[in-house]
Amino acid sequence: MTRVAILGATGYTGIELIRLLNNHPEVELIFAGSESQAGNALSEIHPQFRGREDLILNRMQVEAIPPDVEIVFCALPHGRSLQIVPELLANSFKVIDLSADFRLRKKELYKQWYGYDHPAPTILGEAIYGLTELNKERVAKGQLIANPGCYPTSIILALAPLKDNSLVEVNSIIVDAKSGVSGAGRVPKQAFHFPDCTENFKAYRVASHQHTPEIEQELSKLGDSNTVVTFTPHLVPMIRGILSTIYLNLTSLKSEQELRTLYLNYYKECPFVRIMDEKTMPETRFVRGSNYIDIGLKLDQRTGRLVVISAIDNLVKGAAGQAVQNMNIMLGYKENTGLEQLPF
Amino acid sequence: MTRVAILGATGYTGIELIRLLNNHPEVELIFAGSESQAGNALSEIHPQFRGREDLILNRMQVEAIPPDVEIVFCALPHGRSLQIVPELLANSFKVIDLSADFRLRKKELYKQWYGYDHPAPTILGEAIYGLTELNKERVAKGQLIANPGCYPTSIILALAPLKDNSLVEVNSIIVDAKSGVSGAGRVPKQAFHFPDCTENFKAYRVASHQHTPEIEQELSKLGDSNTVVTFTPHLVPMIRGILSTIYLNLTSLKSEQELRTLYLNYYKECPFVRIMDEKTMPETRFVRGSNYIDIGLKLDQRTGRLVVISAIDNLVKGAAGQAVQNMNIMLGYKENTGLEQLPF
Amino acid sequence: MTRVAILGATGYTGIELIRLLNNHPEVELIFAGSESQAGNALSEIHPQFRGREDLILNRMQVEAIPPDVEIVFCALPHGRSLQIVPELLANSFKVIDLSADFRLRKKELYKQWYGYDHPAPTILGEAIYGLTELNKERVAKGQLIANPGCYPTSIILALAPLKDNSLVEVNSIIVDAKSGVSGAGRVPKQAFHFPDCTENFKAYRVASHQHTPEIEQELSKLGDSNTVVTFTPHLVPMIRGILSTIYLNLTSLKSEQELRTLYLNYYKECPFVRIMDEKTMPETRFVRGSNYIDIGLKLDQRTGRLVVISAIDNLVKGAAGQAVQNMNIMLGYKENTGLEQLPF
Amino acid sequence: MTRVAILGATGYTGIELIRLLNNHPEVELIFAGSESQAGNALSEIHPQFRGREDLILNRMQVEAIPPDVEIVFCALPHGRSLQIVPELLANSFKVIDLSADFRLRKKELYKQWYGYDHPAPTILGEAIYGLTELNKERVAKGQLIANPGCYPTSIILALAPLKDNSLVEVNSIIVDAKSGVSGAGRVPKQAFHFPDCTENFKAYRVASHQHTPEIEQELSKLGDSNTVVTFTPHLVPMIRGILSTIYLNLTSLKSEQELRTLYLNYYKECPFVRIMDEKTMPETRFVRGSNYIDIGLKLDQRTGRLVVISAIDNLVKGAAGQAVQNMNIMLGYKENTGLEQLPF
Repeated sequence: MTRVAILGATGYTGIELIRLLNNHPEVELIFAGSESQAGNALSEIHPQFRGREDLILNRMQVEAIPPDVEIVFCALPHGRSLQIVPELLANSFKVIDLSADFRLRKKELYKQWYGYDHPAPTILGEAIYGLTELNKERVAKGQLIANPGCYPTSIILALAPLKDNSLVEVNSIIVDAKSGVSGAGRVPKQAFHFPDCTENFKAYRVASHQHTPEIEQELSKLGDSNTVVTFTPHLVPMIRGILSTIYLNLTSLKSEQELRTLYLNYYKECPFVRIMDEKTMPETRFVRGSNYIDIGLKLDQRTGRLVVISAIDNLVKGAAGQAVQNMNIMLGYKENTGLEQLPF
Repeated sequence: MTRVAILGATGYTGIELIRLLNNHPEVELIFAGSESQAGNALSEIHPQFRGREDLILNRMQVEAIPPDVEIVFCALPHGRSLQIVPELLANSFKVIDLSADFRLRKKELYKQWYGYDHPAPTILGEAIYGLTELNKERVAKGQLIANPGCYPTSIILALAPLKDNSLVEVNSIIVDAKSGVSGAGRVPKQAFHFPDCTENFKAYRVASHQHTPEIEQELSKLGDSNTVVTFTPHLVPMIRGILSTIYLNLTSLKSEQELRTLYLNYYKECPFVRIMDEKTMPETRFVRGSNYIDIGLKLDQRTGRLVVISAIDNLVKGAAGQAVQNMNIMLGYKENTGLEQLPF
Repeated sequence: MTRVAILGATGYTGIELIRLLNNHPEVELIFAGSESQAGNALSEIHPQFRGREDLILNRMQVEAIPPDVEIVFCALPHGRSLQIVPELLANSFKVIDLSADFRLRKKELYKQWYGYDHPAPTILGEAIYGLTELNKERVAKGQLIANPGCYPTSIILALAPLKDNSLVEVNSIIVDAKSGVSGAGRVPKQAFHFPDCTENFKAYRVASHQHTPEIEQELSKLGDSNTVVTFTPHLVPMIRGILSTIYLNLTSLKSEQELRTLYLNYYKECPFVRIMDEKTMPETRFVRGSNYIDIGLKLDQRTGRLVVISAIDNLVKGAAGQAVQNMNIMLGYKENTGLEQLPF
Repeated sequence: MTRVAILGATGYTGIELIRLLNNHPEVELIFAGSESQAGNALSEIHPQFRGREDLILNRMQVEAIPPDVEIVFCALPHGRSLQIVPELLANSFKVIDLSADFRLRKKELYKQWYGYDHPAPTILGEAIYGLTELNKERVAKGQLIANPGCYPTSIILALAPLKDNSLVEVNSIIVDAKSGVSGAGRVPKQAFHFPDCTENFKAYRVASHQHTPEIEQELSKLGDSNTVVTFTPHLVPMIRGILSTIYLNLTSLKSEQELRTLYLNYYKECPFVRIMDEKTMPETRFVRGSNYIDIGLKLDQRTGRLVVISAIDNLVKGAAGQAVQNMNIMLGYKENTGLEQLPF
């Protein structure tokens, strides 16, 4: 059994990792660090684990992690990972970091979009962006994987086949994305207080969300042109799920069926990407609890625009599931090991 | 007291009309017709009305409507109104029709988008499109008001100040709209069965929704060019509310503040239109249960696109509330009589 | 116009009071105090009020309240009211206090159930328990009204006709109550964080909820015996509403119809109490947004037990609505003035 | 691999069975019968299965089931199973029936509570009531397992340790149970139409629910006396989960800790029963998606009553999960094979 550790075990991505790793046949979780709950049993704070994952939460210190741990998952808030990851790397741990702290290549973008000076810019160059489907070979050899954001996962995979084939008209991409509330994390805030949040729908950080540069950076790597997007996230009164509705103009005339074939071929080796047929459009419930991304296509004949719609579970393919998928590749396991539970 | 009738009293728009009219100081509901429930007490089917609106539901026949009724509201399904409205008009009733049956000017559009041959095309030319803010004078004199659709209300009002000033680049409008489930009506269907519908988010009728020609028809009347839109509706797991996120390119450079001023001036006589300041964006809960439309603006500096966001309660400003607003104008009452309840 | 003030204007009961008072034809809100938001506009914090209630929030100091204010509503957290109410009374204001701080007659009960030593025990003896239907005459003359708790309102009114007629077997009452989340107030907490709260159902404070002594105190005043109850509250993933399911044994054999008649007679002068017929049971949506309490009865023939079910909107009849009802009576208005909006 | 069949594959219990069996290492689903959807691919109707369970739905005829099928799951509506189960038995299939059609021993009870004359009363005597924890030996040898109802599972397991030790005062049991909406099945009905169902809470079939005789029959088998219960089910606006709050008087004085120890011992061999400690009460989310039943105890010192609270996922331990648990025992697998997914 491979031994792994989680830092930040009690937040939503942390407990989702625990749920998935518990189901993984080759892996054993032996260390769970928590800033606020060290010393308490995990199952006291999260009684769903009672009788199954009763480990005591550790202090979050690198020297406390057993040296035979092969992978350390960092499920910490943005700005916290960058304080601990350099030390983990210095101690030769392989790290899968689920925060945004190592996803962007240019340190100026952290200043601009996250509001902090990145203290470890050299590491930015070494981190592998862990969008598994696009970076499998590099992930296999990486020491530090920057696990993608939930929105970027749903958007980049939805556009990669087009962008990689230079089929997207420059500056035509508009992304209207909608997320369940778990994407905002587990810390209680007014906007996510049940009576303020249920029976409500809203946009937030319109044209200013910090995932924008991540989307642009990765799409710009594909095909022949840089990408700038207009990106509007919205909050849906549900726990899990992201649906991204993406509008763009094509550089050359294609039928919907040609495009569908293009997508099917592009992802034919990817067990977690499902291209919907012409009768079905993605819904978040079809991927709930699973590592799938479902992608649907609709050509608006009247305007010539293409509408691409993708659905993921933000906590699985958008976070913990993709992290396990990356771990599988780093450790040489089959990509979908421990990730085959059906949608729920 | 003005005497009014409702046909189709037991559906969601019907009972919302009853809720609003019950609160109206100048109006008395004296006839409520129902196809399926004639003979039963309204409060048996909808116990919330118990002790307050206990009238017995009538058969839905024109000859049964007392001749001193001044306004007949038709809250019937699409395709049903057109069977009864001609007879109502022939009997000299003023009619506010909440269905789509008289909203479009060209009968071919009914064939194309609704799938039926319109049987009364001459009436199409006489009906007044009852988007109150834009058509007040014509509504005041109309005999047949075609009350707007919920999506079109949220979209046309959000764009009118720009379109009317020829500020919208041709063919640049993309509308990504999201609606609560009451918009789908009260007849149970699989897609709206609670366990299939809650904790889910999806798009539907992508680039093919029947409200598209209504939006285009009305926007094309404003300013100097025809309008074609890409329109994608989505279903939100909540009862009430529509949020429309609209993307467009401007024909000339304006600051966000200039645009906000333009909107404020355009709607300065309109008690139900609220333009949000730069710190606040519309949320559906801010208009819940009220006849308001809230409109927010955000200029995406990086792409030059304008994002306009509007929120309404689909059952109030998007249906029954706007119908009462139109009634007020037809009868010479103050526009907001009976509609001043605060959001809920 | 009668001038009134609210202290604690930004919490859920505060804004519900504002919603109801805005609709009241005889009353004007001229002062809104807030501990945390003094100096800000109410409509900044609660944009639903934009354009309708734009008053600036005041510091919460008694000397700042204009002396011509006739009623001060205290919508403050438990433990905060008791610090300010004595000063309000000393300044001759009439006070309707929506907290629990003056509901119990015996100061020991505060120590036992709320954990604090009551600092103003003499005032406890003067406060009128404002369950309007049972205490109308005393409310009319009171200077300090202790507005009832949400659970007690739903339970005491459901049992009063039986208890007042000595029909309840001693110690047989079991109350299984369920509340929407707004009952927990507006301060964000982990248990009410959307992803932890939706799609979940739980009991809390089983047999130890602080409303227990309030229920027992008021029921004990009716009929010939003291009352002790087993009381279990539960949390329902919805915003508003309380449904109380109450089990008891009768002291004498009655048919369901006799009992229904007893209830109808008992409440025949009470415009907000609706006794359901034998075909209908209360549901929280039938009272949503209204000041009604709906009560249903079912005799379990097999066990001889009576099941009484009541539904209220916890923010209206369970808080702000009943406060306005009490205000109406104190000021000599018709009991239902400003409270006639239909359920929503 | 053991080959199994499902009749009624497209309802909620059917697809939950498919989800669980897909995860089962020893079992292969080779036949899925559907009355309404025969000929269609399962994944067309339920796109969550796309790429994983793409089998074509069969007609629901016994002769079409391959003879090497070892277990047939009937996930059919009540009243439908009894038409097909006798033929299945005659063809020597082992059957796990998830309907109520074979749960009651006395055919008169079907007339009284379900309204039909049972056509196969002799089979009633042969069926094994499949509440696994209480009937493991008999299940192991059974040919026809009557899989328990969701409410009865949550209630009988919560009371068995007390009843089996004759600790329950005769006729003192009151069960106040609350269920998510999936318990009502997948057929759309008005009461479960999203806008009528969300933001609402209600009781239904008060003191007249058809699960009552099932609860009484099984509890009466334990200990020294027959059991009669007052049972009130309620509908919670959530997809999954049952929480049962049960009130009773004890025949002898016990401390809460003694009772907890009794429960722990009673279920010490049962991997799916979790007894909560004194600091934690069950919540439906702690068992969501899992086969656990969580049980909490609270002694109301003031009234002497015991409150027992249990939580299950109605579709798993209350239906499909318990069916798989029974299958495991019938086939000699470890009881929790394929059922170890953590709560979700």
